[in-house]
Amino acid sequence: MKSEVPPKSGTSFLPCKDRKENTMIDRLIEKIKLTEAPIVVGLDPMLKFIPEPVLTRCFDEFGENIVGVTEAIWRYNKEIIDNICDLVPAVKPQIAMYEQFGVPGVMIFKRTVDYCKKKDLIVIGDVKRGDIGSTSEAYATAHLGKVIIGGTEHYGFNEDFATVNPYLGSDGIKPFLNVCREEKRGIFILVKTSNPSSGEFQDRILQDANSRPLYEVVGEMVAKWGEEVMGSSYSYVGAVVGATYPQIGKALRKIMPKTYILVPGYGAQGGKGKDLVHFFNKDGLGAIVNSSRGIIAAYQQEKYASYGPKNFGEAARAAVMDMRADIREALASV
Amino acid sequence: MKSEVPPKSGTSFLPCKDRKENTMIDRLIEKIKLTEAPIVVGLDPMLKFIPEPVLTRCFDEFGENIVGVTEAIWRYNKEIIDNICDLVPAVKPQIAMYEQFGVPGVMIFKRTVDYCKKKDLIVIGDVKRGDIGSTSEAYATAHLGKVIIGGTEHYGFNEDFATVNPYLGSDGIKPFLNVCREEKRGIFILVKTSNPSSGEFQDRILQDANSRPLYEVVGEMVAKWGEEVMGSSYSYVGAVVGATYPQIGKALRKIMPKTYILVPGYGAQGGKGKDLVHFFNKDGLGAIVNSSRGIIAAYQQEKYASYGPKNFGEAARAAVMDMRADIREALASV
Repeated sequence: MKSEVPPKSGTSFLPCKDRKENTMIDRLIEKIKLTEAPIVVGLDPMLKFIPEPVLTRCFDEFGENIVGVTEAIWRYNKEIIDNICDLVPAVKPQIAMYEQFGVPGVMIFKRTVDYCKKKDLIVIGDVKRGDIGSTSEAYATAHLGKVIIGGTEHYGFNEDFATVNPYLGSDGIKPFLNVCREEKRGIFILVKTSNPSSGEFQDRILQDANSRPLYEVVGEMVAKWGEEVMGSSYSYVGAVVGATYPQIGKALRKIMPKTYILVPGYGAQGGKGKDLVHFFNKDGLGAIVNSSRGIIAAYQQEKYASYGPKNFGEAARAAVMDMRADIREALASV
Repeated sequence: MKSEVPPKSGTSFLPCKDRKENTMIDRLIEKIKLTEAPIVVGLDPMLKFIPEPVLTRCFDEFGENIVGVTEAIWRYNKEIIDNICDLVPAVKPQIAMYEQFGVPGVMIFKRTVDYCKKKDLIVIGDVKRGDIGSTSEAYATAHLGKVIIGGTEHYGFNEDFATVNPYLGSDGIKPFLNVCREEKRGIFILVKTSNPSSGEFQDRILQDANSRPLYEVVGEMVAKWGEEVMGSSYSYVGAVVGATYPQIGKALRKIMPKTYILVPGYGAQGGKGKDLVHFFNKDGLGAIVNSSRGIIAAYQQEKYASYGPKNFGEAARAAVMDMRADIREALASV
């Protein structure tokens, strides 16, 4: 297809008519209600999680090389996805685990996103992007938006939600809001992360904010940004708050009543069902809990060892069922 | 190539013997001295910067589609690189501008990094990554390190330096330090960014740090992390501090005496030569100033309009010469 005078600038980010009736946050809530599972499965395929039979087979077929490894990651993901897609509303592929294999790894990330969407799973791209204005606009386009070339839409990685780092302030966030509004998709902004050293900066007490910690001020900003892009009950703009800090979760829940909270840190990182109750609102909604290795590498745990490495998908399924029961029990006891 | 029992886990991140005699920070300093230009050219190819003749030609050859666009970005980059590679020590491709085109865009990012290294330019990957421990490890591997598969090393994106976001604290940074130590490469950690709203969180006054702003505490941590991985005079760990905040640059220069400062915000964002002097140490070193659109889209400025869109590479070269003169003059007047 040739063009005599190609549209050069300004024509590459055209708006297009709304493609979906519902906003992505409403779809997420609907699916959480349907599955009765406020659970997102983290697709973080570290090499050490991939069962030996999968790896051996791919090395036999493709060679012990980058193609063999990335193909193994893909087959591992696919088996997990096939086993959990009817049980949970969403998955959260962690792009770093793919990016470490360079371009071939990024191609598998994209293949995983596409497959999950085909299976009607909501995809939260765990990309933790964030930059100054025009650059954040490019990141937002990459993960939630599209470019239009020669009249054709091209979605880059095409996730439904993306995680975003707030360190650069409003003008790093606003471009994401613009794309979210346009595409009816959403973001989860890091507020209080689950890792041990998250407090080094996030917990600092601010003199100019009435002696409150930084994460509370970030939480307030998340709530404020979220008001601009509301779904029917919750905002397109969510927050990340680690399960490993339940008391902080309780405080942030109050500060951000209309914000969906993505809660990492359950399971392998130490968070338990009873720690999660404070992240939910009284409507039983408002939080979605992530587990990555606790699900995808369940077969490596003593509890699920009987499945064996060949049945790692079924072990993942069993681990999801147990996680769902754990969360239900915790919520019922409130 | 087949293997009977492939190495599954633990064998994928093997150390290998040092490939270079000098650390990357020492090479950077050496090249800054040789070129007498403490300048890094930001390769942030927004579509609106690409001259119409380049775009038209690629659309004619490849069609008005994603291949045509990414090929145009590549040719645009190559022409710029060819015109500036003898004048400056380093380039800083901004991955967001490539990522927005999905996998084909990321492939052009990688091609650009490889070409710059072939031209003996030091490559600072502006990726602003950062996550919790194991995930930061994967990001560090992706951009500065390698995986070893079947005894063969695979470098993912293979930059020399990467920019990193500090919001998650030490355990998000340490995996980068490990890879830097191993590969003798480096990072630049965001301390005070150049954008208008950077102060929303970064300037907050901390009660628990003797009423100092957050960026000072982050700066102190950068200096501390940097002590672990020292080159001959400066650390592998640098900092990002925006040219748009010269007084903050002055304060941070004192807090981080052994830290190289990457200074964005010169030119298009408003920073001027005289604003830069505080970012340098008395040895005339310690800072490297970035300009992106001011160089790569110079032909669009009135000052360089006479070059015309066809000679955009020469316009970029002229803009680098002018920037070098501006910085030299400012430093000479101190």
